[in-house]
Formats: sequence, C-alpha cells, structure tokens
Amino acid sequence: MQFNKAMILSIGNELLIGKVLNTNAHWLSGELTKMGFIVDSIVIVKDDVSEIASAFLSAIERKVQLVISTGGLGPTFDDKTVEGLARAFSLPLVLNAEALALVREKYSSRGLPLTPERIKMAYLPLGSKPLDNPAGTAPGVYLKYRGVHFFVLPGPPREVEAVFKTSVQPIIEREFQRIDFYEALLTIKGIPESEFAPFVKDAAERYKSVYVKSHPKGVELGSPVLEIHLITFGIENMSQLRSCFEYILMSAKKLGGEIIVLKEPGVKL
Amino acid sequence: MQFNKAMILSIGNELLIGKVLNTNAHWLSGELTKMGFIVDSIVIVKDDVSEIASAFLSAIERKVQLVISTGGLGPTFDDKTVEGLARAFSLPLVLNAEALALVREKYSSRGLPLTPERIKMAYLPLGSKPLDNPAGTAPGVYLKYRGVHFFVLPGPPREVEAVFKTSVQPIIEREFQRIDFYEALLTIKGIPESEFAPFVKDAAERYKSVYVKSHPKGVELGSPVLEIHLITFGIENMSQLRSCFEYILMSAKKLGGEIIVLKEPGVKL
Repeated sequence: MQFNKAMILSIGNELLIGKVLNTNAHWLSGELTKMGFIVDSIVIVKDDVSEIASAFLSAIERKVQLVISTGGLGPTFDDKTVEGLARAFSLPLVLNAEALALVREKYSSRGLPLTPERIKMAYLPLGSKPLDNPAGTAPGVYLKYRGVHFFVLPGPPREVEAVFKTSVQPIIEREFQRIDFYEALLTIKGIPESEFAPFVKDAAERYKSVYVKSHPKGVELGSPVLEIHLITFGIENMSQLRSCFEYILMSAKKLGGEIIVLKEPGVKL
Repeated sequence: MQFNKAMILSIGNELLIGKVLNTNAHWLSGELTKMGFIVDSIVIVKDDVSEIASAFLSAIERKVQLVISTGGLGPTFDDKTVEGLARAFSLPLVLNAEALALVREKYSSRGLPLTPERIKMAYLPLGSKPLDNPAGTAPGVYLKYRGVHFFVLPGPPREVEAVFKTSVQPIIEREFQRIDFYEALLTIKGIPESEFAPFVKDAAERYKSVYVKSHPKGVELGSPVLEIHLITFGIENMSQLRSCFEYILMSAKKLGGEIIVLKEPGVKL
C-alpha cells in the first residue's frame, strides 16, 4: 500500500516557554490519521524566519506529501510564517488580490480601514491560494510546491478547526486517495508490562500490517494496568486486525489478566 | 548574556496519531524556561531507531547545551530511545551495572525475576549514567557527549516529573549557571490585535531585552481581547521589563482599551 506521509509544524514562542499547550498538533494529527495519513513528525519552532524556513524545507527531505503548519499568521511583526514559507523555496511575497479581498471584506464590514498591519495578511508566496478563515481575519495559505501540499493555518484552535474543515479537508479529499483507518483498544489489569512484552512483540511479528503498542497506565509493580492499542490502515488489513486482537485477548487470558475491551476492531470515525 | 539553549524530544507513535496529548513537552518547557533556558525547539518522532538517532544528532547541529527526551524507555520491543541515542553517536550499548542493580531491586522487592525484557532496561550507551526512577521501573539515562547534556526520561508524565525533580534538576543546578526568568502578563479588551500591533512592535524595538508577544483571545472583529505577555531573563533586565510594561499599559489606555493586569513584572517561580 502507498501511504501518504504528513508533517505538522507548530510555530510560536508561546509553545516553547510552556505557556500554551499544543492542542492544535494533537487535534490535527488525529484528523490526519483518520484520513489515512501517517503523521511522520511534529516540529515546534519559534517565530523566526530562518527557523520556519528550515522547518518547511525539511518536509522535502523527509519526503512527506503534506505539511500543515499552525501559528504566526496574524497582523503583528512577529507573525512570520508566510515569510518563512516564501524564504524556504525562494518565492517572492506578493500582494494576493483574492486574499486582500477577503481581508478587506472582514474589516470593512465593521467599518474599519485597511492598515499596513491588515494588508500584511494578504501578502502570500507567489503561486499560493488564500484559504478563507470563517473564525478570524487572517486567511490561511495553500501552496503546492515540488509535489508537496503545504497548508498554512492560523494559531487560535477555533480558527485552525474552522479553516481545516472548510478548506483543507475538501482539498485533501480531492487530491489524495482515501485510506481508511481502523483501530482496537483494550486494557489488561494485573499483568506487568515487562511480563506481557513478549506477547506484544509476538503479535507484531505475526500480524505485520497491524501496529501494536502497549501503554503502561497503572503502576508496573503493584497494580499494573496495560492499555493495548492496535491500528491498521486499509480494509484489506481488517482480518489481520481481528486476528491480532484475538491473539492479544487469548494471551492476556492465559496469563490471568483481567480484560476490558474499550473498542472492538472497527472504523474509528 | 550567554544563554543556555535546550531542545525537547518527544518519542512515541501515540503522539503522532492524536491518541496522546503531549503534556510532557509542555511541562518540561515551562520548567526549563523557569531555570533560564531558551527552549529552541520541540520535536516529536516515532519509535524508530534511525528517526530517534537523527533527532539526537540534530541537537549538535542546533548547538544546544541540553536535550531532554521523553518516552521509549520501557521493556517492550518498540521502546527504542536508548538504542537511538547509542546509534546517534556510534556508542556501544553495554549492560550498566548500576542500572541493572536499580532494575533488579525494583522487581526483586516484589519477588519477580529478571527477564530479558527487564534486563533490556539496564543496557545504556557507553559512558552514560542511570537516573533513578522513583515512580517506575525504567531508569532514566544521563549522557554528556560533545559538551551536550542528554537526559533521557521515560514517557508516563508521573515518571517524567519524578525523574526530573530527583535527578535532572540537581544536575542542571550543578552544571549550569542559573539565569532568572521574569515575566508580566495583561489583557486588553476592546482593541483589535491589528490596531495594537504597531505598539507591540514599537515596544519590542524600544526594549530589546524584553520579548513581547500579543495573543488574540477574543474575536478580532466584534469583541477583541488581547493578551500581552512580556518576558526577560536576568535581573539586569528587570528595569527594561518594567518600562516596557508601563509603555504597553499607557498605549492601551490611550487607545481606550480596558486593561486587566494578570501578573505585574516579577519572578515567575
């Protein structure tokens, strides 16, 4: 199967000083996974043009097909994401007529003039398209460059979700073949992770198309609780997912674990 | 002033599929900032030896003095962080006597034997020291290599906090000169971010040692709420922080904003 690889880039000093929890990357990685993407990495960098440019460039090296960035799109001097994207690929920043119309419309509907700070939000790298922001004023940016789809979104979570749903999702659905994501989840009480480890390894070796991971949730020594998460992509791997799930259940039973099935093998959505 | 730069590396597929929110990186970046570090970047990669090795190596290129990783330290086959660290610097993985003693003690106190999965947690890159894990069984790892301090911590947040406080913090306090962190925080109601932007820029230009950032919290058009965060490092920059704070207050008042001071300039801790 040909997987689509994605990278998430979070931009903003507030994420690096422990002020803001990066819920955007968490939400986006879930959405992309459900759409069949393998999220390859998440990178957080500060509001610095050359840092941002390097991060966008690294997407080409990592051979991902899609990049979504959040943050640094606003009217202030330290909102530098678009400049970073332009620098990454040596593209000029040009005043985009469509973006300017979107910005003008937002402000003029409130009787506010176009100032340099507002016009700044309409400068995009040559070849980009603006994405309407139904929850804010800064338009998102879509650029397809060297075969990679770059989506540049604002920072506030409400705006990220709005732009993703209105503009990003439809483009992804049009441009990429959908691969379904399937998962199963169960917890096992009473078996330390180190005791169950050989069975997890064995399951992963038997069912190669299933990704199996155990997460220690309780206290390894004393009251162990192990969460086992199984995932696969593509309907053709559904039977392997079911067999792997049965194998884990059986192994846990044999060792005397108490099992709670949280999610039977099935579609996530 | 000579700043100490740090990098945080989060390891685990669960962070890339949207299953787990990366609270570890958020907590650690706050702790490091309070100790005077500039957190330069946060990177999340999957449980893959070569990905982990590249990420550790990139710390050398980024010229950071300290790296903290979380995740991938347990007894299962897909806990590969230590192997990744060893590969990054071509160090052999050796059975560390001190680490083995720590692991043995934990399990034997419960009458559990040393199995290959448990012994695995005592293999460290040559030259490393184990860090006791008061909240779990996998020891952390400390390696000083090419002048960079690498701290490899487990994944569960409870264990991250325990190892950080018992082992990492004392080493940092011994090895790095402490630089104090100061901040101020206020919100301004009634002024759109795009209108206040020139004042934020002006403040940043006047008070070079202060980092000023505005975060839109309300709705730019309609009910704007702007949070302004000011930070600086080192007691010698305290007066600039106070002046910058006054400048922001005065500018917001002049524009008719409603101001709420959330934190006067002062020590964060």
